[in-house]
Amino acid sequence: MGNEMVIGVDLGGTHMRTALIDLSGNILRRQKTATDISHGVQQTTQRLIAECRAQMVAAAELGGAVAGIGLGVAGKVDHKRGWVIFSPNLPAMRDYPLGPEIEQSLGLPVLMENDANAFGSGESWVGAGRGIPNWVGLTLGTGVGGCLILNGKLWNGDDLGFVGEIGHLIIHPEGPPCACGLKGCLEAHASGSALLHFVADAATQGDLTSGPLYELWNDGKLNAREIYHCSVAGDPVAKKAFSRMGWALGLALANLFTVLGIRTAIIGGGVSAGWDQFIEPLRKSLAEHSSMLVVADAVIQRSVLGDDAALLGAARLVLEHRSLTSI
Amino acid sequence: MGNEMVIGVDLGGTHMRTALIDLSGNILRRQKTATDISHGVQQTTQRLIAECRAQMVAAAELGGAVAGIGLGVAGKVDHKRGWVIFSPNLPAMRDYPLGPEIEQSLGLPVLMENDANAFGSGESWVGAGRGIPNWVGLTLGTGVGGCLILNGKLWNGDDLGFVGEIGHLIIHPEGPPCACGLKGCLEAHASGSALLHFVADAATQGDLTSGPLYELWNDGKLNAREIYHCSVAGDPVAKKAFSRMGWALGLALANLFTVLGIRTAIIGGGVSAGWDQFIEPLRKSLAEHSSMLVVADAVIQRSVLGDDAALLGAARLVLEHRSLTSI
Repeated sequence: MGNEMVIGVDLGGTHMRTALIDLSGNILRRQKTATDISHGVQQTTQRLIAECRAQMVAAAELGGAVAGIGLGVAGKVDHKRGWVIFSPNLPAMRDYPLGPEIEQSLGLPVLMENDANAFGSGESWVGAGRGIPNWVGLTLGTGVGGCLILNGKLWNGDDLGFVGEIGHLIIHPEGPPCACGLKGCLEAHASGSALLHFVADAATQGDLTSGPLYELWNDGKLNAREIYHCSVAGDPVAKKAFSRMGWALGLALANLFTVLGIRTAIIGGGVSAGWDQFIEPLRKSLAEHSSMLVVADAVIQRSVLGDDAALLGAARLVLEHRSLTSI
Repeated sequence: MGNEMVIGVDLGGTHMRTALIDLSGNILRRQKTATDISHGVQQTTQRLIAECRAQMVAAAELGGAVAGIGLGVAGKVDHKRGWVIFSPNLPAMRDYPLGPEIEQSLGLPVLMENDANAFGSGESWVGAGRGIPNWVGLTLGTGVGGCLILNGKLWNGDDLGFVGEIGHLIIHPEGPPCACGLKGCLEAHASGSALLHFVADAATQGDLTSGPLYELWNDGKLNAREIYHCSVAGDPVAKKAFSRMGWALGLALANLFTVLGIRTAIIGGGVSAGWDQFIEPLRKSLAEHSSMLVVADAVIQRSVLGDDAALLGAARLVLEHRSLTSI
């Protein structure tokens, strides 16, 4: 097989990132460009194909060859056909055969997963999940993504087009409204948006009337990072937003551990940068809501791959696919 | 191998039931005797061994031989060692090597699972779960038991001594108290005990002041079956008790389907006899709490094996164990 490599792609609403990755999970070369879908889905697809072609040229220059391309895409995907069903960050890319388009242009196998599953695949390969057969993955961002690794593999369920949607676990049936249209989902408590809503509600209800956090809200400059800094600085509303996040995560994980009979979770995504503000409330809530688990046995770990998890995980899809088809 | 057979045992707090079962899952012969643990764990174990010996004699008379014994036991068991850790119906049998005791006496392999897992194993073998790779099992009784069948097999998780404990999924963090010490578990909404508590609360709060249901409560004769009859007869409190049960089951299943990416549940246990009083509220709640699943795809089925599910499932453990060890 010579010097084989794989291309991993992380397709987001703002950027498309690609990486040339060796069979041991080392990133040899990265590229990043704007996704810019304003000129249409076709144009974005052509740009992504060009990025992959550049990686193929680079692979050849390194004396290697690309065995396939793995795509991680936010949203609902049909991983069997390689179609994007619906991506909240790329609404124009609805029911779109992105995988087959790239496959035809480049003559390489293309595999696709949603970004949370790609995260799980990456952390399982060369990250915090390495060697752990069963774990729950959570990605905290604008929303909350999730995945299940069971027996060392990404769990796909009945291939219904959704799986591991832990963000939409209803943890309180009378809880706050969620973007999905339901009430009380984990995402409505534990995402970047949930932090923002919590602070905005406090401001409009008069529980937050002054100070830096209030100013941020008043100036329309509220974001998860700023709420984090205010929490670190001791702002009680920001602290409450993060402690509610931890409470919700602990409750959701307690429920999943109880049902799955497992004890490990790995948490990533941009908002997991607020770790020190939510991990203690998370552990407290996990203990309070666990009836079966010996809580000291629980392992709650932070992602070690950061932004690279989805890139690496997408690449690993190609290797897994190959080992399946070569049997 | 000649005419091989297996013994299935369902060990409950009141009765121990044994059955002689052929390799196709046909029950050839049944026995039932009182568990009566009042004379101690040793005496009960000896009685169970005598029951199994009688089945072995019967097998020989049928021209067969017993290949092993499968035990289904309510409560927490260590299925790897065959120990009963704690059984709420047999509190004297705590940290007890029931499997090894029987194995030594009879010289046959003994396998053990808790009763909800045995239910799942049985329905999967020759019941409502036959041919369905992924499903959630629920047993509605005094409590709520659960199991997961994934890729056609009983899911064991990390072998922590609990798994599939769907009865202790917290569906409402401010919900009613559960026997496990927590609040708002599925079991606190959807078990026989939960029906009783609901009616008793209504009576003590003055929401139930007359009629047959009130009389039952007042006479200390309340049980799930009577509440069912009152519900069928139109009693509004009994109806509410069952509709809360359905609401809770629908919410729990929506959560599990969302996370596991599956769509099938099989419900058994004595209280599932109230099916016609809770299935519509269950379906309504499942629809209301599902954000991903196309609700028409959901399959909510009733157990077809009834009381025999655990007996058959226990027997199947022996066959599975054999096929594993003979590889």
